[in-house]
Amino acid sequence: MKPTILITNDDGYFAPGIHHLIQIMRKIGRVVVVSSEQAMSGMGHAITIKTPLRLKTVVKEADYEEYICNGTPVDCVKLGEQVVIKGKPDLLVSGINHGSNASINVIYSGTMAAVIEACIDGIPAIGFSLDDYSSHADFSHLEPFILTIANATLKNGLTPGVCLNVNLPKIQSESIRGIKVCRQAKARWAEEFDSRHDPRGAEYHWLTGKFENDDRTEDSDVWALENNYVSVVPVQFDLTAYSSIDHIRNWNL
Amino acid sequence: MKPTILITNDDGYFAPGIHHLIQIMRKIGRVVVVSSEQAMSGMGHAITIKTPLRLKTVVKEADYEEYICNGTPVDCVKLGEQVVIKGKPDLLVSGINHGSNASINVIYSGTMAAVIEACIDGIPAIGFSLDDYSSHADFSHLEPFILTIANATLKNGLTPGVCLNVNLPKIQSESIRGIKVCRQAKARWAEEFDSRHDPRGAEYHWLTGKFENDDRTEDSDVWALENNYVSVVPVQFDLTAYSSIDHIRNWNL
Repeated sequence: MKPTILITNDDGYFAPGIHHLIQIMRKIGRVVVVSSEQAMSGMGHAITIKTPLRLKTVVKEADYEEYICNGTPVDCVKLGEQVVIKGKPDLLVSGINHGSNASINVIYSGTMAAVIEACIDGIPAIGFSLDDYSSHADFSHLEPFILTIANATLKNGLTPGVCLNVNLPKIQSESIRGIKVCRQAKARWAEEFDSRHDPRGAEYHWLTGKFENDDRTEDSDVWALENNYVSVVPVQFDLTAYSSIDHIRNWNL
Repeated sequence: MKPTILITNDDGYFAPGIHHLIQIMRKIGRVVVVSSEQAMSGMGHAITIKTPLRLKTVVKEADYEEYICNGTPVDCVKLGEQVVIKGKPDLLVSGINHGSNASINVIYSGTMAAVIEACIDGIPAIGFSLDDYSSHADFSHLEPFILTIANATLKNGLTPGVCLNVNLPKIQSESIRGIKVCRQAKARWAEEFDSRHDPRGAEYHWLTGKFENDDRTEDSDVWALENNYVSVVPVQFDLTAYSSIDHIRNWNL
């Protein structure tokens, strides 16, 4: 029997990235899509608790169902499991995100929040992101890598509490050099605000920033992308900094 | 010279919890508050990128400044650093949250997202949460514990990449038994949706759920709270599941 694959993203149901992911996943499974009516980039692990969620059926066929909702990527996973599938899919995939979720981006990413949510629920889950922010990005070179990683995950399973953050290089003249299992690079966004005045004279601020990476080691996801490798980072939702427990116990609070 | 302490929360500037935290922090530092006009519970690490941010000055005195904005808790931290302080505070504290952020709640919490954001920026940061969801919760028993932990953090500093998630028991007839350094309990929310029909007959869904904890070990934050201890969990934003890297490398992708 074909595996049931739940698909979501954070760029909205209309984004080219999710349509590429749907086409790829339909080759290996029964696909259920629950995505958002609106772009939800930068929503992190937000959930909707102050307003009710609405779910609309777009397509309902034997091997393919598509729904849209007014919620966040995490809401999409919850609705997909509880209201649509009424159980656990065999795999959750999120993306293909328009833009990298390597390094610290994993913290802000709605794409990866959906993956982490599925992981909390015990579902093998993978986020796919293309290192190209253009809405006209070329996704044509990604299928073999996505199929390899999705099939390996379905075959091998993942350790409970662990999911995958996969970032894919943008298309270049040279072919992708392979897949590297990496760790999250120690990089950050140096934030700045673009402060302006509106026509009534009131000040407002646009969030902007520059990605700063001083982590040059060759086992990081940013290094892999810069060197034309697909990066695969195993991600966990246990945020405990175990190595600091003894340090803080020594404070004798 | 008094340390500069940036304060935010996710319950909005009007919440009793932040006002208790402000009163406590004013005893040890120069305080700058940047909080949200609206309640932002469950916003996770969301940032505002589609709409501009507005910042309003509420109070501006030598040792005390208070601002409100239309952003998320993470936006509040960014605005506090970049637009208000124009530099790094000596400490960021977030809360006091109305409700526990122990265990898996750390993932959904706007309170802890603000703390993690400051941590990414290299600022010592602590989230304080009271294990009582009532808007009329009693905060009167918390001050000595909050002062002890804030002063110890100012004195000792934190390892780069590590911040603190502090949860405090609600008031009971017995006094709090002490402070325990813990790890994040392996618990989760068993989600359910409360599905209803509006007056026009259209279906909508309220997110609801039940907290399920099977983690009975005595070093978890949930155990500490249940046994009337303050829990302190060191938290990191490097989500790499290092113990899974070799497992996935063996897939030979």
